[in-house]
Amino acid sequence: MLTLYYAPHTCALATHIALEEAGADYDLVRVDFAKSEQRGADYLKINPKGRVPALATEHGILTETPALLIYVAERYSNEGLAPLDDAFDLAQAQAFNSYLCSTVHVAHAHRMRGHRWAEDEATIAGMQRAVPRSVGATFQLIEDGMLKGPWVLGEAFSVCDAYLFTLAQWLEADGIDIAKLPRVIDHRRRVSGREAVIRAIEAELIGG
Amino acid sequence: MLTLYYAPHTCALATHIALEEAGADYDLVRVDFAKSEQRGADYLKINPKGRVPALATEHGILTETPALLIYVAERYSNEGLAPLDDAFDLAQAQAFNSYLCSTVHVAHAHRMRGHRWAEDEATIAGMQRAVPRSVGATFQLIEDGMLKGPWVLGEAFSVCDAYLFTLAQWLEADGIDIAKLPRVIDHRRRVSGREAVIRAIEAELIGG
Repeated sequence: MLTLYYAPHTCALATHIALEEAGADYDLVRVDFAKSEQRGADYLKINPKGRVPALATEHGILTETPALLIYVAERYSNEGLAPLDDAFDLAQAQAFNSYLCSTVHVAHAHRMRGHRWAEDEATIAGMQRAVPRSVGATFQLIEDGMLKGPWVLGEAFSVCDAYLFTLAQWLEADGIDIAKLPRVIDHRRRVSGREAVIRAIEAELIGG
Repeated sequence: MLTLYYAPHTCALATHIALEEAGADYDLVRVDFAKSEQRGADYLKINPKGRVPALATEHGILTETPALLIYVAERYSNEGLAPLDDAFDLAQAQAFNSYLCSTVHVAHAHRMRGHRWAEDEATIAGMQRAVPRSVGATFQLIEDGMLKGPWVLGEAFSVCDAYLFTLAQWLEADGIDIAKLPRVIDHRRRVSGREAVIRAIEAELIGG
């Protein structure tokens, strides 16, 4: 049995969608950021990093979205959520997920989480001013080539699509001109219509 | 046949070490950052992100250190460089590598690559002031638990050790008090004595 620790409007949605796409049996536990639960003693025992997502398994706890996505794809390998049988194709999936976590999500985080990399308000404000450019550049690379179409890796839907969809939720709030990203926006629209995605988003709104 | 595109003093060293540990047959191509070759038209055809590392394979080009490390471990699976046969153990390896790329390396990059997330010199200087705290906190989590010992994942050396060693090269320049990190420093010393690591570092100094 699995338990996903999440907060709404975070990258935990990617793993949540993967679990739904896989037809997994899992519990959902909301970590209340408004009460700073992610930095409370109870949650730090689960994830000392004080972040979401975390996935409790019968073997122990796992963290980091790229690791969770491939783990879910392997655990439910019949669902075809990653190209597990080809080392090169799998590495391409990993590279995409790695770019999202280390470059795309990081650029976005400079708008709301600037305290991670600054001590003073002026620096945090300076970071925020750069977000439309920095996030916009990362999505332009995705638009121009990394998103093969119709899905990220080509013909088959994968966990990479769940992850891209999750981060693409934040484009408008980050001040990105989405008119420059027609393929990314078309992808976002198509992912949003999937039943597993609708179920995951509804569960997070309800508060699971 | 593989070709690794690298620059000295970058995270490309992690993949370089993995190739040496694997006994791989590969070519080494230096990308000259002093001449901004990473943003030149020739290199952007190889990696549109304008970064190193990139690994050319007979199937195409791969990027992103976590993807390259697991790819090398899979391609040379007899060398035991990752726990490929256990989904949970592999996910732990992936989580470690993901933390290094998305949190540890990113915190470090605010010292030398602040232009990625800022438009003005005052903001870049503000980011630099935070590096000892932000990088220090990430390594403290590694010191206190993520590094199981004697190697990152426990008893067996893996690609995670190559990656941690690579980023730990930058601790002193980032202003970290290494006296607080005795386990990380001991790990760094032990990795630095491995023959594959010595060969990789020498090749980068020579200019491969």
